[in-house]
Amino acid sequence: MSNRLNRQVRLVARPAGLPKPTDWTITEGPVVDPGPGEVLVKVRYISVDPAMRGWMNDRASYVPVLSLGTVMRALTVSEVVESNNDAYQAGDWVAGMDGVQDYAISDGSQYLKADTTLAPPQTYLCTLGIAGLTAYCGLLEVGQLQAGNTVLVSGAAGSVGAHVGQIAKARGGRAVGIAGGAEKCTYLIDELGFDAAVDYKNENLYKSLKQACPDGVDVFFDNVGGDTLNVGLALINLGARVVICGAISQYNNTTPVEGPSNYTMLLIRRSRMEGFIYFDFRDKWPAMLKDLAAWRAEGKITGREDIAEGAVDIFPDTLLRLFRGDNFGKLMIKLPE
Amino acid sequence: MSNRLNRQVRLVARPAGLPKPTDWTITEGPVVDPGPGEVLVKVRYISVDPAMRGWMNDRASYVPVLSLGTVMRALTVSEVVESNNDAYQAGDWVAGMDGVQDYAISDGSQYLKADTTLAPPQTYLCTLGIAGLTAYCGLLEVGQLQAGNTVLVSGAAGSVGAHVGQIAKARGGRAVGIAGGAEKCTYLIDELGFDAAVDYKNENLYKSLKQACPDGVDVFFDNVGGDTLNVGLALINLGARVVICGAISQYNNTTPVEGPSNYTMLLIRRSRMEGFIYFDFRDKWPAMLKDLAAWRAEGKITGREDIAEGAVDIFPDTLLRLFRGDNFGKLMIKLPE
Repeated sequence: MSNRLNRQVRLVARPAGLPKPTDWTITEGPVVDPGPGEVLVKVRYISVDPAMRGWMNDRASYVPVLSLGTVMRALTVSEVVESNNDAYQAGDWVAGMDGVQDYAISDGSQYLKADTTLAPPQTYLCTLGIAGLTAYCGLLEVGQLQAGNTVLVSGAAGSVGAHVGQIAKARGGRAVGIAGGAEKCTYLIDELGFDAAVDYKNENLYKSLKQACPDGVDVFFDNVGGDTLNVGLALINLGARVVICGAISQYNNTTPVEGPSNYTMLLIRRSRMEGFIYFDFRDKWPAMLKDLAAWRAEGKITGREDIAEGAVDIFPDTLLRLFRGDNFGKLMIKLPE
Repeated sequence: MSNRLNRQVRLVARPAGLPKPTDWTITEGPVVDPGPGEVLVKVRYISVDPAMRGWMNDRASYVPVLSLGTVMRALTVSEVVESNNDAYQAGDWVAGMDGVQDYAISDGSQYLKADTTLAPPQTYLCTLGIAGLTAYCGLLEVGQLQAGNTVLVSGAAGSVGAHVGQIAKARGGRAVGIAGGAEKCTYLIDELGFDAAVDYKNENLYKSLKQACPDGVDVFFDNVGGDTLNVGLALINLGARVVICGAISQYNNTTPVEGPSNYTMLLIRRSRMEGFIYFDFRDKWPAMLKDLAAWRAEGKITGREDIAEGAVDIFPDTLLRLFRGDNFGKLMIKLPE
């Protein structure tokens, strides 16, 4: 191992507002050998997710605060290089949280094996990973989708949103997406089978949504927050489920988050708004992955991937693309072999 | 009947901000005889509730818009004067929605008979009516209180809030109330058995609540909205239930309602915020009333009543007391016999 180098992207500052490249530093060091029971993996794909912005804060959230100086947390798909753990052998693909670095060592307990005969490895960061599972948990477990429901999803051309719309269709719902720009809206309808799409950058959001949801909204899956959440709340039906998956419009705020003044619609419409994290449903993942893989095989779900190829040093720039909204599909980094 | 006069308070204008006396007019007319199947009642107690402010708006809500010129909607306890309906006879007490007037005629289908051997008639506007039932539905059905939970309730010295705290105690919870002023806070602890009370007018709400809820908040029953809702959200535990019963701080806003920027805590704490109306649980009311009556008989629940005695013309001033927060207990008007 001694001639291998591990480049690691370490968090060194906590940004106010948008992250800057100087919030991380890159260190290089030798790759160490795995100890007893441990696994050495080569990271092959790094998931780039909006939640990463929250992980940079000095505030306990659903995951522990990341200390300054540690490797940036990231979901990954990696290949086992060397294993002292009976559960793994060299050549296995594993989905886990190896972070933004070339190599990682762990006891393997948090890995899910990625069956690459079922789908290519990077699918385990998309349809068979965070994107598909988040959509599934949010729409079906939290959102309690019923056939015939109108499902409104914001950030619809994003990886989670795209899966929400497609799962809604697979389960007999009507899918309406909010996205930025005509190209994304066309994609939602023509490629993903959404019933309607609203371009929040070029349309009056309330008017267009009212037209796109003539029967109101039964499940509102919100990734965006801010004004989008507020306008969507105005359209909810009696007993609606508003699923809070994220608030990407607010993650880089330096002023307080904008609260949804239309939260009183929850009272008027006897509805609920509920947040969730897909990790909480870990015991149901195997069954969910079976459904997702079947829908994928039947062509009911496609997971568009936006793959940036390069070394770990492209991470800061790649993350910023998310907040500019100029990724198109599940954003990830493919490291060189 | 012909020598009886019916004074009726009719809505004639829709206020911006706080209601003004000129938003109503009082008309006088003869009391008409009930038709076939109908009941004539004398209104004896008129419930004065924050929700009335919303009923004055020209905006569909959970009840139809009240047309200008019609009698102001109100919950009432009335006495049957004359009945052409087999279900009722003169002398019966009925809880219903007869409005702000002296007499009403109806087909009786919306009435609940008030058993005055169980409790005095006005109790059916308090513990055995809107206050007790709203608290019960919100805390136990929507809030899913578990024994050992910390229950935070805003507007705690109000009629609903007082019942929430007492039901929480009766069911093994820990009750923490938010109220305005030392007198109300003392009342919560000394007379109602709350475990802690925070005076939002004279204390730092966040700091005091953090101290009063060392284990966080499992059920937050919010009657107030605005900053109170926002601060309470900061303290919720994993899987908390935030029950939206009202938003009295916002009802008279002429600017947009203040949205809770801490709604993102729903995501961080995997929690839900849910609105409800006690009418939706009508089929469960008989069982709930049985519990409420039993707790009342056992002395576990007292319903403090704030009874304004006078004719229907005191209604506008009495309603305004609610928004100044200077009622103390369930506010109602007792009409002369």
